[in-house]
Amino acid sequence: MAETLFTGISQLVTPAPGPQRGPAMRELTVVPDAALLVRDGLVSWVGPRRDAPAAAHLHDFGSVAVVPGLTDPHTHAVWAGDRLADFEARVEGVPYETILARGGGIRSTMRATAAADEAELVQLALPRLRALAVSGATTIEVKSGYGLDFGAEIRMLRAVRALQPIISVTLVATLLIHVPPQTGRTDYVQSVCGELIPQVAREGLAEAVDVFCEREAFGVDETRAILAAARQHGLAVKLHADQFHAVGGTELACEVGALSVDHLEASGEAQVAALASSSTIATVLPGVTLHLGLPAAPARKLVDAGACVAVGTDLNPGSSPLFSAGLALALAVRLCGLTPAEALTAATANAAAALGLNDRGALVPGQRADFLALHSADWRDLAYALGANPVRDVWVGGQHFKEHSR
Amino acid sequence: MAETLFTGISQLVTPAPGPQRGPAMRELTVVPDAALLVRDGLVSWVGPRRDAPAAAHLHDFGSVAVVPGLTDPHTHAVWAGDRLADFEARVEGVPYETILARGGGIRSTMRATAAADEAELVQLALPRLRALAVSGATTIEVKSGYGLDFGAEIRMLRAVRALQPIISVTLVATLLIHVPPQTGRTDYVQSVCGELIPQVAREGLAEAVDVFCEREAFGVDETRAILAAARQHGLAVKLHADQFHAVGGTELACEVGALSVDHLEASGEAQVAALASSSTIATVLPGVTLHLGLPAAPARKLVDAGACVAVGTDLNPGSSPLFSAGLALALAVRLCGLTPAEALTAATANAAAALGLNDRGALVPGQRADFLALHSADWRDLAYALGANPVRDVWVGGQHFKEHSR
Ligand SMILES: [Zn+2]
Ligand SMILES: [Zn+2]
Repeated sequence: MAETLFTGISQLVTPAPGPQRGPAMRELTVVPDAALLVRDGLVSWVGPRRDAPAAAHLHDFGSVAVVPGLTDPHTHAVWAGDRLADFEARVEGVPYETILARGGGIRSTMRATAAADEAELVQLALPRLRALAVSGATTIEVKSGYGLDFGAEIRMLRAVRALQPIISVTLVATLLIHVPPQTGRTDYVQSVCGELIPQVAREGLAEAVDVFCEREAFGVDETRAILAAARQHGLAVKLHADQFHAVGGTELACEVGALSVDHLEASGEAQVAALASSSTIATVLPGVTLHLGLPAAPARKLVDAGACVAVGTDLNPGSSPLFSAGLALALAVRLCGLTPAEALTAATANAAAALGLNDRGALVPGQRADFLALHSADWRDLAYALGANPVRDVWVGGQHFKEHSR
Repeated sequence: MAETLFTGISQLVTPAPGPQRGPAMRELTVVPDAALLVRDGLVSWVGPRRDAPAAAHLHDFGSVAVVPGLTDPHTHAVWAGDRLADFEARVEGVPYETILARGGGIRSTMRATAAADEAELVQLALPRLRALAVSGATTIEVKSGYGLDFGAEIRMLRAVRALQPIISVTLVATLLIHVPPQTGRTDYVQSVCGELIPQVAREGLAEAVDVFCEREAFGVDETRAILAAARQHGLAVKLHADQFHAVGGTELACEVGALSVDHLEASGEAQVAALASSSTIATVLPGVTLHLGLPAAPARKLVDAGACVAVGTDLNPGSSPLFSAGLALALAVRLCGLTPAEALTAATANAAAALGLNDRGALVPGQRADFLALHSADWRDLAYALGANPVRDVWVGGQHFKEHSR
């Protein structure tokens, strides 16, 4: 299938390629009765059906809307164990401290993940990644970060590498420096910079390094040191920041030119202003808002101030068991105040930019032919429908994504 | 298949049959390594696998959790037209009055529904009902209420009757008296009582009559008159009440022994107390909370006070485009403060009781063999997972539900 013309497209809807800022996030191109020509895995032409060039192969969708494939720019999809007992206890009103004292919380995920071998991690992550793909994610970022030690971190990243040939969506691995050790944190940060990051870079196990910058996690100075080491080794950088307290992570991210800063629930005016005058993507994670009942990130304010906003699932067992990139988009409208058009841009062009990818997220010539055919003739169903998957067909690099049995 | 033994059940989980009140909502029976014997569409035995009787047929689920089929006790699944432009306008900040003035809002759904014939209504509703069934709903209530005139109301109810042979889940039709006419409401209520209700009863088109009792809809006296007419004609009664203002609908529902009172977002202590000492089911609808960003019903307080709480989707195009009974259950935990166990009871035994059905909602001998096999070995995944359907197989009356192509 070197060249295929896709027709039966009631609406072809796309943001402009590359990161879109502020009001530009709402400026979608909508081509009614459209066609899409794919050549060698790339979009080679889009326009009205009547103007379409001839092609060797034809594929007719009937009459449904087509949008770019989504990028999920923030997941922790590799984990072992489960947090169902924690979930039940929390909603029954048990304090998190008690859950931790019982052996629950994030450290239970870290223990289970550290105890699993690479093959187990692959088996556990695969159905999660398939669920995300079926929900419309054609590019998925996956972080490490549940390793109790460097060996477990490397194993998590190797699991992502092992998953790539099994699933046709693009996986992007990130080394996440997530949980400080209970003692010896200075040595730990030094080893992260001097051993872990160099090894990850040498083996090509991650595209970027992420740090959880927070009062209970890594401070600004520690984060700065880790990001500097990442940069020295040719890796991009990003941050978890402002989740509970705005301790300076967002300002640091903007200062060092991080790809993205993610969470932002506690961001105030200073952080919004910093992001508005920066090329760092502001990634919001509404699954956490829904699952934990915590305040949402100020996405509306960020767009209005002129920032580039992206949306992700934050798929993880403790704070966001959200297995759908489409639902993350729909929740960004309900919980973060984005319009449907802004949410589509946040989940496509801007989410790709949050991973440093400018070759996808828009349906214009030259971009990757990652796209979705919806059940509906109106693209807004993607943001509107709750609880049923509005995505009918997922195309990755011009190839139909086949879901395998779970 | 007169008799089948289902095995490979890691946990068989069920509330007690019949409506469960207050703390009893949390008292689930969990049978590990279970089996379930179905004879002639009914549960005939449940217990540990090792004690299971012999059976003519065997069906092995592998090792997954089994729970009762869900009942969705509140939907408006029959409608024509769409509300996508309204949705987009609302989230862009356009006031509802402006949306109405542009020809949007509920009256646009009423116009489109009144203009559709029965066959169109059937075609439009079918994929919605299938989505609910795939999400775990083995019994679905469907209301009229978008008719501009009685002919359209009757057509909506006939569409539900026409849908029943097409889909194997149980459909329960309700005549909803929803929107007062802009003039002549006294005559309208008289005609509802003297013409519409008698015709619906005579033709057997609905099991119950529901009234939207609210400041902008029908007052308590009008509601009382309509419910009395319903009772005279042998129909059960229920109410939409306390959605925006507690104008006395809940008290009326409890006084007249309504099957359920639904919404309750504006219920205060008096309404909670009335429900706690009544057999009327309190049905909460978290899809509305999520979609519109309005306050949730006080489900936690209702359970703690001793009421019987149910949960439904309120599937409708304006205020709850929620196409999953399973997600309604999961949202009841996040948005209404129910525990997973309470939410399961709310979506099974109590939701069935909200329709006057005591023959389903629990997996004990004599009940209908409506049940779900999950993807997971742990039933709590049903309340936990967001965005991917945790239900693997749906069984209705002992028969495997087949989803037809959409
Ligand atoms: Zn995260
Ligand atoms: Zn309703």
